[in-house]
Amino acid sequence: MTIDPKETPVPKIHGYLLSAVAPRPIAFASTIDKAGNVNLSPFSFFNCFGANPPIVVFSPARSGRTNTTKNTLENVLEVSEVVINIVSYNMVQQMSLASSEYPKGVNEFVKAGFTETPSEKVRPPRVAESPVALECKVLQVIPTGEQGGAGNLVICEVVLMHIKDELIGEDGKIDPFKLDAVARMGSDWYCRANGDSLFRLPQPAAKLGIGFDQLPDKIKQSKILTGNDLAMLAGVEQIPDVSDTMLTLHEKEIIKNGEEAVHHLVKQYLQNGEVENAWKILIFNNA
Amino acid sequence: MTIDPKETPVPKIHGYLLSAVAPRPIAFASTIDKAGNVNLSPFSFFNCFGANPPIVVFSPARSGRTNTTKNTLENVLEVSEVVINIVSYNMVQQMSLASSEYPKGVNEFVKAGFTETPSEKVRPPRVAESPVALECKVLQVIPTGEQGGAGNLVICEVVLMHIKDELIGEDGKIDPFKLDAVARMGSDWYCRANGDSLFRLPQPAAKLGIGFDQLPDKIKQSKILTGNDLAMLAGVEQIPDVSDTMLTLHEKEIIKNGEEAVHHLVKQYLQNGEVENAWKILIFNNA
Repeated sequence: MTIDPKETPVPKIHGYLLSAVAPRPIAFASTIDKAGNVNLSPFSFFNCFGANPPIVVFSPARSGRTNTTKNTLENVLEVSEVVINIVSYNMVQQMSLASSEYPKGVNEFVKAGFTETPSEKVRPPRVAESPVALECKVLQVIPTGEQGGAGNLVICEVVLMHIKDELIGEDGKIDPFKLDAVARMGSDWYCRANGDSLFRLPQPAAKLGIGFDQLPDKIKQSKILTGNDLAMLAGVEQIPDVSDTMLTLHEKEIIKNGEEAVHHLVKQYLQNGEVENAWKILIFNNA
Repeated sequence: MTIDPKETPVPKIHGYLLSAVAPRPIAFASTIDKAGNVNLSPFSFFNCFGANPPIVVFSPARSGRTNTTKNTLENVLEVSEVVINIVSYNMVQQMSLASSEYPKGVNEFVKAGFTETPSEKVRPPRVAESPVALECKVLQVIPTGEQGGAGNLVICEVVLMHIKDELIGEDGKIDPFKLDAVARMGSDWYCRANGDSLFRLPQPAAKLGIGFDQLPDKIKQSKILTGNDLAMLAGVEQIPDVSDTMLTLHEKEIIKNGEEAVHHLVKQYLQNGEVENAWKILIFNNA
């Protein structure tokens, strides 16, 4: 299916874009107007973009239906400061309540039952319940259009970070299981980043993997090994030298059973992260 | 814990920021240089920011260690086009392999075993294996600093979207379970947006919830009901009129057992999404 945005109604483009670019982190943005009225509203057009200086960007977009602007946008144009509060699963219903379109001047901290804590370097208060809060100065606001659904890039520098002590794991880092973040998907779907959904991949080191182009054709054409499996084999710096190792009796049996059996065992080794063993049996099988 | 970025080493800020602003969607960016050399690299400083026109932004940041720039950044400055490919779980190992720092001129499509498909409106090819691909024109590149770790906002307009037919559910929308997207967390953690991690929240309608300030104190002070529970109660447009309804025998029993028992039943109703029933027993309990 191919979609040309110029020939497609905006709500449809909006829907596909939000379903495809997901999960999106949530900026729960606290702002104030010149008179000091506080606003609190969630935005999933949000991410960090650099660390030096620490830059985050969020977009309070123009309404697709009414082409009105958000109180949050009006506020940052009046007072160029914002606190971006991170949303954990235990706050998600309250956050959703705060996303209602209460009239300007209504404080969503009150409506959604959050506790205002004074910030140190900016005027908008932060959310006491949030696991992390980023006090930010707004550097620039870039409208990307004037029609309904147009974005407004609010480019912010983080001037102070608050992190709840209980999030920090034994390694001194934020533990994602303790953070228990929620993110936005398309339509009314959310994603809770916890439990079985979290997994680790070792980051490629400075050394470079041999790549798919160096894999023997017989392996690449396997009907059992998937792209993910092949990528693990192609991620080694060089094909291991296994001349000093021995096959176990079990492995010898498997090799007697033919290519398909070998690839099943390779797959099993890869699932356990045993890339060396996977290569060993492949090499002996080809020898 | 409070962290002032001005007084903290960049790698530490980088680590906290990436752990806190998560899960982050992944832009698997295909670019070319003037000579036509193809590059493919993943970036998690990425999101959509508006729908009209459809705007996505990603940031190939300067290396925190070496302050070098990414081939992707150099490419979009030479040829201001990019295809942003979405990454599903079955491609994540290959994507990780493509993130290795292969020298300029090495085609990561080849190294990571992806299939180049010609794009229709831009010169860089797209990834045939990706569930969704966004052909984009680069509107502007904004460096947010010159030091190691500085971001570069690559602001893109989506000029063509490709969506695999098999992702579309019966409602005509992208089914998040079929998309099976992966996102980046801090350090070497990833999030797979599927299975139990996905949940729905009805979006607040035009009607406004009564808010926490309208909840009776006795409910707000409950030791059993959490913020999420209270938010569901506070999300009703008005406290329901239950004069026409009756309590079941079971509910009458529960009320006899006292406040704590009532709040446990309320919680159970809320977990089933039965907000009206939750209110009913609260009202009769207070009558």
